[in-house]
Amino acid sequence: MITKHMIRTLMIETPTVPGNLGKVATAIGVMGGDIGEVETVKVGPNYTMRNITVQAENEEQLQEIIQAIEALGEGIRLHTVSDEVLSAHEGGKIQMKSKMPIRTLAELGRVYTPGVADVCRLIENEPEKASIYTTISNSVAIVTDGTAILGLGNIGSVAGMPVMEGKAALFDQLAGISGIPILLDTSDPEEIIRTVKHISPGFSGILLEDIGSPHCFDIEDRLKEELDIPVMHDDQHGTAVVTLAAAISACKSAGLDLKEAKVGQIGLGAAGVAICRMFMAYGVKAVCGTDKSEDAMNRLAQYGGQPLGSIKELMDTCDIVISTTGVPGLIKKEDVRKGHVILALSNPKPEIEPEEALQAGAAYAADGRSVNNVLGFPGIFRGALNAKSKKIDHEMLVAAAEAIASCTKHGDLVPQPLDADVHQAVSAAVERAAAGK
Amino acid sequence: MITKHMIRTLMIETPTVPGNLGKVATAIGVMGGDIGEVETVKVGPNYTMRNITVQAENEEQLQEIIQAIEALGEGIRLHTVSDEVLSAHEGGKIQMKSKMPIRTLAELGRVYTPGVADVCRLIENEPEKASIYTTISNSVAIVTDGTAILGLGNIGSVAGMPVMEGKAALFDQLAGISGIPILLDTSDPEEIIRTVKHISPGFSGILLEDIGSPHCFDIEDRLKEELDIPVMHDDQHGTAVVTLAAAISACKSAGLDLKEAKVGQIGLGAAGVAICRMFMAYGVKAVCGTDKSEDAMNRLAQYGGQPLGSIKELMDTCDIVISTTGVPGLIKKEDVRKGHVILALSNPKPEIEPEEALQAGAAYAADGRSVNNVLGFPGIFRGALNAKSKKIDHEMLVAAAEAIASCTKHGDLVPQPLDADVHQAVSAAVERAAAGK
Repeated sequence: MITKHMIRTLMIETPTVPGNLGKVATAIGVMGGDIGEVETVKVGPNYTMRNITVQAENEEQLQEIIQAIEALGEGIRLHTVSDEVLSAHEGGKIQMKSKMPIRTLAELGRVYTPGVADVCRLIENEPEKASIYTTISNSVAIVTDGTAILGLGNIGSVAGMPVMEGKAALFDQLAGISGIPILLDTSDPEEIIRTVKHISPGFSGILLEDIGSPHCFDIEDRLKEELDIPVMHDDQHGTAVVTLAAAISACKSAGLDLKEAKVGQIGLGAAGVAICRMFMAYGVKAVCGTDKSEDAMNRLAQYGGQPLGSIKELMDTCDIVISTTGVPGLIKKEDVRKGHVILALSNPKPEIEPEEALQAGAAYAADGRSVNNVLGFPGIFRGALNAKSKKIDHEMLVAAAEAIASCTKHGDLVPQPLDADVHQAVSAAVERAAAGK
Repeated sequence: MITKHMIRTLMIETPTVPGNLGKVATAIGVMGGDIGEVETVKVGPNYTMRNITVQAENEEQLQEIIQAIEALGEGIRLHTVSDEVLSAHEGGKIQMKSKMPIRTLAELGRVYTPGVADVCRLIENEPEKASIYTTISNSVAIVTDGTAILGLGNIGSVAGMPVMEGKAALFDQLAGISGIPILLDTSDPEEIIRTVKHISPGFSGILLEDIGSPHCFDIEDRLKEELDIPVMHDDQHGTAVVTLAAAISACKSAGLDLKEAKVGQIGLGAAGVAICRMFMAYGVKAVCGTDKSEDAMNRLAQYGGQPLGSIKELMDTCDIVISTTGVPGLIKKEDVRKGHVILALSNPKPEIEPEEALQAGAAYAADGRSVNNVLGFPGIFRGALNAKSKKIDHEMLVAAAEAIASCTKHGDLVPQPLDADVHQAVSAAVERAAAGK
């Protein structure tokens, strides 16, 4: 018996005439593939779509099966070959749902015409009632221009949609928030600001996502200034909140007083600068940073941090070192001093492996695998929405970081990101800090 | 025993300290109100929100109860007094939901980082795959500037949100479409066009909704021209589809050949002009119309219809009369001729009561109570999305109207709007008509 190790799902379109599934099944069987489930996705007047799960021995056999199907012709088309990750994304990960079924004409009359007119008139006369009788008070736009999707760079907003849908799915599950992806066709800062403002009446918060540096700074600052709802760029402040939480826990493990320590940040991109600002807001007196870009160094200075000329200088003078450069192995073990706390956060490869840093004398060292911004944004926005806050400021963000740190088990860097208690703790802390903002 | 006829739900905020609910309950009781359910909506660090159902004998007693609560002070606030319709709207009617629970770190890794990166990269390389691995292919933006909400006029987009949420709820329930309300803060046509274009990458269709006349014409025409996804202004074409369906059924009942008849439209606003265009697209050779506005008459002529100088002239020359003026009693019974088919569609009061028209000799007469555009838009967009159509044209709309008419029982004007079979029939007809567009 041969064990077949590869399982793939083939999405196949056939013209809606009898016999076509037989042709496809025969082509797969002749090439030695085993058919598992056959799921009919859609039967249309013109064509039928099916997902067929196929087991193959190896990549070579899979390719033979694919070629056999493609050779069938007669309108039979192989659309996709999906593995487990791709299958989880089929059809998208989110959907706008009605909160209640509309079963009778009486219910239709209540939630649609004519009943809905009473609600519209009430909001016209008392606009603040919109927060009670519409979903606006629970809706956050997840806005991207696609210029800095994950570590993948400027791949466009449509290619970034799976990330935005992931955020929306997590908003729903972890904070009960209705997150609406907004994909922009422009990366011009003025156009982005103008567009977000024009669609802002439908939302009570704006999560800026995967917008590149440096235009992200201007966009965020302007929208914060010109809108009276919370605006947050997650790649900056969400990441900085979780990093501060991690540093609080790391210092506790290493027996260090974070506020009195000297903190050095290697890499001053959007996340790096935000991390420096978050440490200053937390009360760390000495925050340094270094970067190859002079603009980045100036930006740090402008926010009150101290630029340093080299990584060596930073390693020599700082107690706590954080790096977000994306360059594996950038931190040399000979530069590590006894008692250093090192958070080398670049994914998937850190600037220095934790084991290496510990061997070289560090008191605590970790990489960025567990530093997931999922820990931050759901509770931060839940708290801000609960408090009906007009903004998200550093006091609220520091409260979020302290809440995450307080939920972290001794010795761990951060809590488990799907733990509902963490998100409730963050939400409550942010709501307290937001009171009256 | 006194029977208490009024039931209202009071939403009350109290500072989160013990004893406050007691104060509220006492105030209600002292004034003679009976408390039913008490539902705690939210317990926050600062305040608690509760829905308290109260029965009162009459409006006067209800007002006394309200005043007693408002007099309590000490941070106790009465937010809303809701009846059944308002209660159905509390918290809004829709929410963006995750399609699957994210329970384990392995699942998080598949639908969010790091797994999601594979999907993003795939779409970057093969953009057409976005229709399979994201929700874009199932998402329609419901866009309004709030200038013509229902019959209420220019009340602003936020006050119109209950209508947009109703549309989204019906999209979900009747067509499985993810409908996203987009509330605009501008009614400038250029700004609306620009904004909708900038956010269009996230959608596979645009439903324009409750946008006033005449700027709705330009906005729709331009967006149709400049976007390669279906765009439809529901107040024009959705209404026109259902009206054509009604006219087909009415003519069948009256034994009239619609295509050979002379059709007259009274009222040439957005809906009226669209109704004329829909009849011409269906194949009616003689379509006339009348309106007080010269601009409106010119618009009809521009689309190929024949303007008439007066309602009298229209009643004298046309076999089928349709009115959408919003003016009750506008059609005089002495103008009704034997054999007329009259659809007086204004809500809540028609231009002529059906009974009166029938007494005056009409072969068939109906008002607009059952002519609900819920019959149109869900299936029209479902069909267009299924066909991956780049547009919605008159051929598709006529197919939708014929499908609605074919589902109508003999003697009825239109089918029941929540009947799932109707929406499936519309979707299938539109998909067939859309093939290859």
